[in-house]
Amino acid sequence: MSLLIVGTVAFDAIETPFGKTDKIVGGAATYIALAASYFNKKNKLISVIGDDYDMDMLEKLKGKGIDLTGLQIKKGEKSFFWAGKYHYDLNSRDTLDTQLNVLATFDPQVPESYKDCEFLMLGNLDPKVQMRVIEQLPNRPKLVVLDTMNFWMDIALDSLKEVMKKVDVITINDEEARQLSGEYSLVKAARKILTMGPKYVVIKKGEHGALLFDKEHMFFAPALPLEEVMDPTGAGDTFAGGFIGFIAHTKDISFENMKRAIIIGSSLASFTVEKFGTERILDLKESEIDARIQSFVELVDFNIEFVE
Amino acid sequence: MSLLIVGTVAFDAIETPFGKTDKIVGGAATYIALAASYFNKKNKLISVIGDDYDMDMLEKLKGKGIDLTGLQIKKGEKSFFWAGKYHYDLNSRDTLDTQLNVLATFDPQVPESYKDCEFLMLGNLDPKVQMRVIEQLPNRPKLVVLDTMNFWMDIALDSLKEVMKKVDVITINDEEARQLSGEYSLVKAARKILTMGPKYVVIKKGEHGALLFDKEHMFFAPALPLEEVMDPTGAGDTFAGGFIGFIAHTKDISFENMKRAIIIGSSLASFTVEKFGTERILDLKESEIDARIQSFVELVDFNIEFVE
Repeated sequence: MSLLIVGTVAFDAIETPFGKTDKIVGGAATYIALAASYFNKKNKLISVIGDDYDMDMLEKLKGKGIDLTGLQIKKGEKSFFWAGKYHYDLNSRDTLDTQLNVLATFDPQVPESYKDCEFLMLGNLDPKVQMRVIEQLPNRPKLVVLDTMNFWMDIALDSLKEVMKKVDVITINDEEARQLSGEYSLVKAARKILTMGPKYVVIKKGEHGALLFDKEHMFFAPALPLEEVMDPTGAGDTFAGGFIGFIAHTKDISFENMKRAIIIGSSLASFTVEKFGTERILDLKESEIDARIQSFVELVDFNIEFVE
Repeated sequence: MSLLIVGTVAFDAIETPFGKTDKIVGGAATYIALAASYFNKKNKLISVIGDDYDMDMLEKLKGKGIDLTGLQIKKGEKSFFWAGKYHYDLNSRDTLDTQLNVLATFDPQVPESYKDCEFLMLGNLDPKVQMRVIEQLPNRPKLVVLDTMNFWMDIALDSLKEVMKKVDVITINDEEARQLSGEYSLVKAARKILTMGPKYVVIKKGEHGALLFDKEHMFFAPALPLEEVMDPTGAGDTFAGGFIGFIAHTKDISFENMKRAIIIGSSLASFTVEKFGTERILDLKESEIDARIQSFVELVDFNIEFVE
């Protein structure tokens, strides 16, 4: 099924306790599209870059069947750039540099050929930009997933609340869920967020896994404990891409299938963190992905029919 | 099967963001014995208290069939006392006061009637005291579980390493696993700790669940996301008590059964944190425990037979 992905396509410079990179390709939409492409075949991207971007990367995305008709390339301008440094525990990071560049004036345009998309993934961006995309779609997609972050809660909460009313699923991390709801308990936080628009809340806890809530159900998936974690950048976006890619492919938006999609997203994210940037998820083999999913099945499998 | 539990029986004064207590009964062995008593029927305790202790609590423990023959009561002396304050996230705490009192000179004596115990749970204590208990047992128990903490790694690492050589299972938290192994990855940390004596490593991650490792397998159990968390004190000990209590009751030390024991331990710990101190686990109904276990089953249940 056709999936429309909106988000940044950017440069990152990353430092972790295990190494550092110069400017490498990144951006939420890049990770989402790459991850989704392993499951869903019709993926269409909306973003903006400068003509300084790595054109080889665009060819790679195209090679994976990702439609770039909606990718604006601004002549003489520079792509969005983020530099950050992760602390020892990899759960917190400092932003060293943010250069909005083309993103400062980004006005997303939905091409005619995108307008019949059935699934919409709104990657982390200014909620006003996310709303602009929703407004241009003549028919409401079957499922709209919104990713956001504390930055927008701090400076654009009203816009965020408006766009939240238009979506089915919101994905945020645990601290953001607490900030957005004012509740410490994630169970209470999710319940409150479910009154703000979304029918499903996904709370991402990084290396501690992810929770999925609807009004009646709760599901937890761990992150796969790994021997080597190099760089968490893009893990949340990879997770979101695997999640929506699997749902778009299966066309099944039941809670049961969303649980599977969470496992798929977690599996793909577990690859992303093993190397810097997009390197590890550029060319995954189907057998690798299957083995990773099998590891998840085994990790949490237990049989407790009897107790007394 | 008979289970011997060694650990503190103490007073705590606890402050969390959600309330505070005066001096209340606590101590690792108290939580372990209470938790174990819901599954195993022959539980024998070794500890030391002053005659200032709450004798009602001792009657309650006896009422649950916990044998207190090995509990030394020192006349004119005071019980071990700990006061602590938890931070907002409940994952970290400051110790406000520690009064060793009777614990400073504790020399554990294993009564004759305890010497045939088949399971041994060494709660968090000076590793030398833990070793003294092992040395007094004429026959090696079927399974020995050791709980410890960073404090002993800091001041008594050599003694800790000695006692680790004598045990089957070690339970520690994630930071302690990293400290003990010098490895950041919990997978690598567990593998290293498995070379130090124990055949099984349980890494407790508090609200983020627990991992069980042997040389070939890895299992993860989440903590149950709760609406109300009042006080994490004793959660780790309750977990250990449920774990060993279930194993002692089932007499099955296979990895498969240890996975079940982890779920049982997590279920019981999820009660402990709902109220201050031991209050919530003093009188659990079987139906409450069963319902909690069922919540665990549902929380992580998914079916991913197909992918493509």
